[in-house]
Amino acid sequence: MSDDAYATLRYEVSDRVLTLTLDRPEELNSFTVEMADELEDAFGRASLDDAVGAVVVTGAGRAFCAGMDLTAEGNVFGLDESQRPTMADMADRLTEPEIQTGVRDTGGRVALSIFECRKPVIAAINGPAVGIGATMTLPMDVRLASEKARIGFVFGKIGITPEATSTWFLPRLVGMSQALEWVYSAEILTAEAAKEGGLVRSIHDPEALLDDAHALAHTFIDNRSPVATALARQMMYRNSAAAHPMVAHQVDSLAIFYASLADGKEGVASFLEKRAPEFKGRASELPPFYPWQ
Amino acid sequence: MSDDAYATLRYEVSDRVLTLTLDRPEELNSFTVEMADELEDAFGRASLDDAVGAVVVTGAGRAFCAGMDLTAEGNVFGLDESQRPTMADMADRLTEPEIQTGVRDTGGRVALSIFECRKPVIAAINGPAVGIGATMTLPMDVRLASEKARIGFVFGKIGITPEATSTWFLPRLVGMSQALEWVYSAEILTAEAAKEGGLVRSIHDPEALLDDAHALAHTFIDNRSPVATALARQMMYRNSAAAHPMVAHQVDSLAIFYASLADGKEGVASFLEKRAPEFKGRASELPPFYPWQ
Amino acid sequence: MSDDAYATLRYEVSDRVLTLTLDRPEELNSFTVEMADELEDAFGRASLDDAVGAVVVTGAGRAFCAGMDLTAEGNVFGLDESQRPTMADMADRLTEPEIQTGVRDTGGRVALSIFECRKPVIAAINGPAVGIGATMTLPMDVRLASEKARIGFVFGKIGITPEATSTWFLPRLVGMSQALEWVYSAEILTAEAAKEGGLVRSIHDPEALLDDAHALAHTFIDNRSPVATALARQMMYRNSAAAHPMVAHQVDSLAIFYASLADGKEGVASFLEKRAPEFKGRASELPPFYPWQ
Repeated sequence: MSDDAYATLRYEVSDRVLTLTLDRPEELNSFTVEMADELEDAFGRASLDDAVGAVVVTGAGRAFCAGMDLTAEGNVFGLDESQRPTMADMADRLTEPEIQTGVRDTGGRVALSIFECRKPVIAAINGPAVGIGATMTLPMDVRLASEKARIGFVFGKIGITPEATSTWFLPRLVGMSQALEWVYSAEILTAEAAKEGGLVRSIHDPEALLDDAHALAHTFIDNRSPVATALARQMMYRNSAAAHPMVAHQVDSLAIFYASLADGKEGVASFLEKRAPEFKGRASELPPFYPWQ
Repeated sequence: MSDDAYATLRYEVSDRVLTLTLDRPEELNSFTVEMADELEDAFGRASLDDAVGAVVVTGAGRAFCAGMDLTAEGNVFGLDESQRPTMADMADRLTEPEIQTGVRDTGGRVALSIFECRKPVIAAINGPAVGIGATMTLPMDVRLASEKARIGFVFGKIGITPEATSTWFLPRLVGMSQALEWVYSAEILTAEAAKEGGLVRSIHDPEALLDDAHALAHTFIDNRSPVATALARQMMYRNSAAAHPMVAHQVDSLAIFYASLADGKEGVASFLEKRAPEFKGRASELPPFYPWQ
Repeated sequence: MSDDAYATLRYEVSDRVLTLTLDRPEELNSFTVEMADELEDAFGRASLDDAVGAVVVTGAGRAFCAGMDLTAEGNVFGLDESQRPTMADMADRLTEPEIQTGVRDTGGRVALSIFECRKPVIAAINGPAVGIGATMTLPMDVRLASEKARIGFVFGKIGITPEATSTWFLPRLVGMSQALEWVYSAEILTAEAAKEGGLVRSIHDPEALLDDAHALAHTFIDNRSPVATALARQMMYRNSAAAHPMVAHQVDSLAIFYASLADGKEGVASFLEKRAPEFKGRASELPPFYPWQ
């Protein structure tokens, strides 16, 4: 798929960092089913593209993403009201066309593709990030905010619930009480309020935001094993949600066993020889125990 | 059940906010089995009463709740020592009279009724909140503290363990290390220390506390869908405890599907028409996928 | 086992506090398989030794622990490459010699022994704590840092993943985003940065660190029931990881039931009589419902 494969995104790789730009500036990058499909594709592609070490997500123009495009077609569910979906459908028939296109939350499809990504993901929130524009940043690992960023979990104002798996991620980032208050109140947060609440890592000059995000990305990937980084990301999200640390121990043991046959050997050698490592592993080829759940 | 149905509580609804007042001021609102039964009843009632949008809990007089009434009868377990209860009993025989009244932690029955409540719950901690007086506030969504509040997880001082499901909630609110230190040390915290540790949202003039709590409650419920708010509360607590965000995705998808047939339709219409929404949904009638676990 | 039973540790009990000192100062207390075996033994011993109320862990000389001894033999895995281990092996064959010594992460064996410990555990980080030197402190309950402490999750620099069950503990202590950033960047943190990020409780004069740790330990154990403290520790870690607070309720109920027959009776009596309690319970003999998972 070429770099102009997307209608709603720009996919640009430079110096091992993919900059993924939501690119509907006239519509404040509002979210459509087409954008959801393209984001899902782009994160899957970045996950397996060994030329990509890390991902930075930002918005074209003055907004990050103004939320779901409420004027667009395509958000209407196709299911007959007599066939109301159940939790069993969501487990058993998840990928059947009727459920996939008629019931599944489009924002959630994107969030899960970010969750599964084998690369660090940084949000560079350049302006308003509202609704799905806010929740899509939660499965990203770190959020940098422009002074002009405004973040709102506004679902309550239009009679719906938070989506895009945000109720799994938000309490992990800001604690349960702050998460509930932001969702209940549905207020638009300034960059400062978002930082004070623990959602945002740091606040940046609008002109410097993207450069700062790229610089941070390089501290994550330069002289690093892409295999170790991919596994560390998945271990952090998955192991921490397990009911007992024994799960982490099982995964750790395998991760170090396989590393000791590969990049870990080079890592230790380069450390002892006081030189930069030359890692050969590729994130597109993880050890056979992945995925472990 | 009428508003004077309770001996230990006041149940007062005004402008869609229920103020639930622990009302044994002579005994510093100390907790009895009767109070536990009445709180369990009151939260179940508030959960299903469509006249109630949110709940504020406070104490009459100078205390919030000084803990278990250690002088009272009724805290003695009825089980013969030869029939020691097991974890299997707690799973299989939970509602049998012998277990229900002889083994089950009364504070935990109250905590679970708050957890299940379909309305936002705010603690207005007006004075000392000790033992069960502290732990009963943890399943409440937000804690406001009077300058006179004093909070203590004092169980260790009387040879018992923290209760009322507090070991599930406290680390979610303040992190694991702070939770352990407070429980080990069993010290009485000032309002400032509780705020610094992340337990309390804000500190208030004693005279303003209740008004401030009511004002916050209105930011949670005015022009909101009671159905969406009820689901958001349950999604936040339940989904965040799941081992994988896929659980959140399944629930999100159904929540938005059903909202799109009901309050979500009105929410979007009112937003596009720039008018206040008129939501018809009632929290007493949640969509058929609830409860999902 | 006598107090000089260990080659790499000092095991010294004074006034009910065990000071466990990593004792290879010439090698900056770097971690070996021998040290792992001895730490596992020491925590198991402390857990069941009723003379020990709490544990303080520190390092001899100027370092806490400089990480895995990369020059040592014994970290090479014995398994034939044709018999690559799987997650099933880690679940089904965990204690078979081939897996136990050939695959299992040694740091993880230590971390699990700390997790299982029935006593509060305090890290007194006196200097550099790097790699396993950093991750071994995560299952300890509270971390005190000398001004000279330096903490680094440096695995990414040598091509391996974080270990010692750290991906289960670290997000519980500092939130998901901070945990990921520290692991990705692999930087060495100052004591101040570690405190700001929520990893470290407090920063201490190097000369005062150990005394301060002992003083904190006494606030955790003096006039406390060792049984209640042991249960509270296990309840906090295990119940908070459960998918529903009902698990906490089941455990709470049993914990209070058994306490009401034992130390809880003395605790309430001493409280009402305004005297110090004399608890008889011993952490080496927990009630029959332990362990509940």
